[in-house]
Amino acid sequence: MKVGVLLSGCGVYDGTEIHEAVLTLLALEKAGAETICIAPDIDQYHVVNHLTGEEMPEKRNVLVESARIARGKITPLDQVNIEELDALAMPGGFGTAKNFTNWAFKGAESQIHEGVKQLIREMIHENKPIAAVCMSPTTLAKALEGTGIKAVLTVGNTDKASHYDIAGISKAMESIGAKVLMCDNEDVIEDDINNIVTSPCYMMDVSIVEVYKGIQKTVSKLVEMVVLQNESDGE
Amino acid sequence: MKVGVLLSGCGVYDGTEIHEAVLTLLALEKAGAETICIAPDIDQYHVVNHLTGEEMPEKRNVLVESARIARGKITPLDQVNIEELDALAMPGGFGTAKNFTNWAFKGAESQIHEGVKQLIREMIHENKPIAAVCMSPTTLAKALEGTGIKAVLTVGNTDKASHYDIAGISKAMESIGAKVLMCDNEDVIEDDINNIVTSPCYMMDVSIVEVYKGIQKTVSKLVEMVVLQNESDGE
Repeated sequence: MKVGVLLSGCGVYDGTEIHEAVLTLLALEKAGAETICIAPDIDQYHVVNHLTGEEMPEKRNVLVESARIARGKITPLDQVNIEELDALAMPGGFGTAKNFTNWAFKGAESQIHEGVKQLIREMIHENKPIAAVCMSPTTLAKALEGTGIKAVLTVGNTDKASHYDIAGISKAMESIGAKVLMCDNEDVIEDDINNIVTSPCYMMDVSIVEVYKGIQKTVSKLVEMVVLQNESDGE
Repeated sequence: MKVGVLLSGCGVYDGTEIHEAVLTLLALEKAGAETICIAPDIDQYHVVNHLTGEEMPEKRNVLVESARIARGKITPLDQVNIEELDALAMPGGFGTAKNFTNWAFKGAESQIHEGVKQLIREMIHENKPIAAVCMSPTTLAKALEGTGIKAVLTVGNTDKASHYDIAGISKAMESIGAKVLMCDNEDVIEDDINNIVTSPCYMMDVSIVEVYKGIQKTVSKLVEMVVLQNESDGE
């Protein structure tokens, strides 16, 4: 089983959330999957000093920075062979909402990177399962906007502690066609029609141990979806 | 239990090995320890493009880049209160041998950053346990050079596949006073006299799952050493 892991840089505030990415790689390899890290060869929206939270006067490239998490083994998005992939995993971090879309600034009105949109749409079209955690479900919602596909997703739980506006983000996702459900951190939301599994991870105020539990459950469900899909495809 | 996690940047080729750092944080928090990420406020030796392996014409700061792994919660090395720490964990990556020492270029003849040396020496002096994986034991060896303390350490196993010169590094460490033993990836070397535990991790050609096994065993031993030390201190 080969699973693409879509990265958006290296660092929660301007790229991929690092813990989520590493724990996704760990959980996938534990489940027996081969992982293929993927990132688009584009500039980051900006560079954030993770010590101060301030913008830095620098340019960094999403593919080059993502390669840090991938230890150099990464495929540029425009060279990905979708036929090779059984599933796609999308860790979170602001990168998904700054580099793949500009959701962090424009919410539901944001634009999505054409290559990321096509990758997601083709996975969905070929019934290949997708896992998305943290803020990544907003990118799924943008990718599927206008297709008539009503993906069932989550970005957290308004009843639990979060630094983010879970209600507002959920509402914005619903305004462009998704169905959004509340979800606790160690749980997942399954969309068995579209083969999508989502979990909140660091959208909520949680520890790395809780994030790992959410990712383990997400990956376990993703792998199960691949097995079921392969059976129904007669493989 | 509070454990310092000493970071040297963010990325295997010029900073901390990211998987090792994240998995160390996970294993420590799973074991019930509070983690305190620490890094010195110094320039990296250089910046490496992790996609190509080539040096980039940039400057980056060890504390600022380490903050990416720490999600912003990090203590500058010169503000660390050693009294607060029960133990210290040192993930690997070239950062330890480029930013803390210049071992990557000069081997046993390298220099060590004064603050890193003092942190390690004070931990040892106060019988506070240290865990070091991957390339980090070379920094321990440099820190203890000339003290008469014969730390028992490992950086891998010459009988197993590695991209690195395990024999050469081991010999260089012994030339400055350490005792170096071979160690398999899912195992650890314990120095019960000096309260040090080491394991090879990504010094060997292994998967993230194997690295996690090594880190789990390392952290488990570190926590055990803290408990034993507290008992013998009468706490």
